[in-house]
Amino acid sequence: MSRSIAPERYATRLERAQAVVAERQVGALLIGPGADLRWLIGYEAMPLERLTMLVLPATGRATLLVPRLEAAAARSASGVEHGVVDLASWEETDDPVDLVARQDGLDAAADGSAQVLVSDRLAAAFLLPIQTRLPAATFGLASAVLSDLRAVKDEEEIGLLRRAAQAADRTVAAICAARLVGRTEADVAREVRERLVAEGHDEAAFWIVASGPNSASPHHGAADRVISAGEPIVLDIGGRIEGYGSDITRTLWPTGGDEARGPDVEYRTLFSTLERAQAAASAAAVVGASGEDVDTAARSIITEAGFGDAFIHRTGHGIGLEGHEEPYLVSGNKEPLVAGNCFSTEPGIYLEGRYGARIEDIVVCRAAGPDILNGAPRSLAVVSGV
Amino acid sequence: MSRSIAPERYATRLERAQAVVAERQVGALLIGPGADLRWLIGYEAMPLERLTMLVLPATGRATLLVPRLEAAAARSASGVEHGVVDLASWEETDDPVDLVARQDGLDAAADGSAQVLVSDRLAAAFLLPIQTRLPAATFGLASAVLSDLRAVKDEEEIGLLRRAAQAADRTVAAICAARLVGRTEADVAREVRERLVAEGHDEAAFWIVASGPNSASPHHGAADRVISAGEPIVLDIGGRIEGYGSDITRTLWPTGGDEARGPDVEYRTLFSTLERAQAAASAAAVVGASGEDVDTAARSIITEAGFGDAFIHRTGHGIGLEGHEEPYLVSGNKEPLVAGNCFSTEPGIYLEGRYGARIEDIVVCRAAGPDILNGAPRSLAVVSGV
Repeated sequence: MSRSIAPERYATRLERAQAVVAERQVGALLIGPGADLRWLIGYEAMPLERLTMLVLPATGRATLLVPRLEAAAARSASGVEHGVVDLASWEETDDPVDLVARQDGLDAAADGSAQVLVSDRLAAAFLLPIQTRLPAATFGLASAVLSDLRAVKDEEEIGLLRRAAQAADRTVAAICAARLVGRTEADVAREVRERLVAEGHDEAAFWIVASGPNSASPHHGAADRVISAGEPIVLDIGGRIEGYGSDITRTLWPTGGDEARGPDVEYRTLFSTLERAQAAASAAAVVGASGEDVDTAARSIITEAGFGDAFIHRTGHGIGLEGHEEPYLVSGNKEPLVAGNCFSTEPGIYLEGRYGARIEDIVVCRAAGPDILNGAPRSLAVVSGV
Repeated sequence: MSRSIAPERYATRLERAQAVVAERQVGALLIGPGADLRWLIGYEAMPLERLTMLVLPATGRATLLVPRLEAAAARSASGVEHGVVDLASWEETDDPVDLVARQDGLDAAADGSAQVLVSDRLAAAFLLPIQTRLPAATFGLASAVLSDLRAVKDEEEIGLLRRAAQAADRTVAAICAARLVGRTEADVAREVRERLVAEGHDEAAFWIVASGPNSASPHHGAADRVISAGEPIVLDIGGRIEGYGSDITRTLWPTGGDEARGPDVEYRTLFSTLERAQAAASAAAVVGASGEDVDTAARSIITEAGFGDAFIHRTGHGIGLEGHEEPYLVSGNKEPLVAGNCFSTEPGIYLEGRYGARIEDIVVCRAAGPDILNGAPRSLAVVSGV
């Protein structure tokens, strides 16, 4: 497995998280499988019915608890291999919840003098038994400690996001050149999945192919609907490289080779509004601007053009080891952006029952200004599709 | 999207779950995205940071709460489309937790007179705020109600498991015929992923390719290790069709075309023990036998042959909309199997640092006896691999 994240990063990340834990009267972080665990120690754990959990106490060494069956895989995780965390495995006949409760940092939680923070995605099947085992403890979410840390990407992480963005760009280019008319959305989605991997992703993650009226549903997947000439297709696709995601949206319009079946005037107006709004959002993504500021930059243009009610979602979301993470570019988010934040800028305009459009790039907020990772042309891709 | 599950099934499933809810003094089930939701109403919801939740009260109609952005997708879910559940969408500015607390069935939970059961995979990010909003309520896991129901598959579900098993069989046959020697595990895994889909799965789910000493690690993924002639490969792979999984393990031994590089005597002994154990487990999977009985059937053979310490996991797990679900074939599970249970039988023998082997089929427990869904030959696949 290729590893672009230097092993010493994990020691630094654990130290920084532990410093926040200590300063906030938290007894320990309990981190289950998922992006938090991967970010902290480089372990991509399977989300199993058997408990896997990193226990990070306010002081002292962190311990990774794994079922014996996973011990070999856990040992080869970068952070474990480089000794930033102790490994303890439990047997099929052990009670893993009891093992958690006996770790450093949980004593203070057990008597209620310190909080326990659990990873946001921790499943109820693990959380409820831990709560029962520690009845006096108060529980909170680990994102209170980890979100701000994870939201600032280092250059290795940005490098992975850039590689993913470029692979997504190439996938879009291939789909723009493909036959589209007469194929089902699901069939095009299958091609998207294959090409995302062929272009360099480790895996495909999502593949929205929304044609005709489906393009007015932001989270439409891909259905049996057959694509026609003379209607838009919203293509919103992404994959992962070493866990880091791509997420690009482009809007296509197949004509079937018949110029008369190009976009109508209303759609052209809608789309040019959207282009201006998306460019404004990316340009507004500077250090010190808030998530709300970026949202407003896009939304005000769309509203002024009379499409305000048709832009029914926020302008963007952070991206990294999760497809959606902090910072969110949404009304109400007053937190200033900092250098190293990475997020999508993706306004959309949706006329329900008729059609819609969306444009999305991944942008890095840098001291020098916004760094847009995607390079595929943003204009409406009027293609023949035959 | 093809739909093999008849829409009226969802009404029946909701009714049966509700009957158990009513009888057990439960106020409501709260079901987030995942297999429970898909089984109950046919909605494959994306696991988002925005709350999606089915509220099933002890009496009256169930309600599906979704973010407005997902409303169109939710409306096209089979159970929603056929009116077995009411749909309510919330706006970006609403508090979805408050919306949950105001649903039918939650009033009894709020005053502590009835329990709230949440889906086992519900994320802490949703569970903790709901607990805070309902401080007097007691919480439990929805599996207490749903596991037994979901563990009995109907013929439509078994039909999907069979199609998936057959697609996995064909994938194994293709890999047995492929070049293996000189390729990395990761490269073979990539081929596995492509073939799982090409052979009929909607998506590939996992692709363990564990060669040489890696074959002694049951959950090894696929690494940069280059496969040699004269060593085993444990291939444990699966995909999904309409959510229902395949899960097959076969063990290969590439010789590179040189008969002298075939399996040594010890490995042949190990493997023939394993074959007998796996066949015994499948044969023991009859109505009325317990999960422990099936485990014992395999384990006693392996132990008698002197490999007991090298069989370090349970014999099998249920399969359906989740890759691992009830019933588990494990020591301590005294529950009798019933007709319609579907599970893997997959003993393994692992000599750490040297090599290992595993054989796995999916088996349906039927009144007439075990129905083995996989047909690929179970014997050690001694192949040329060049």
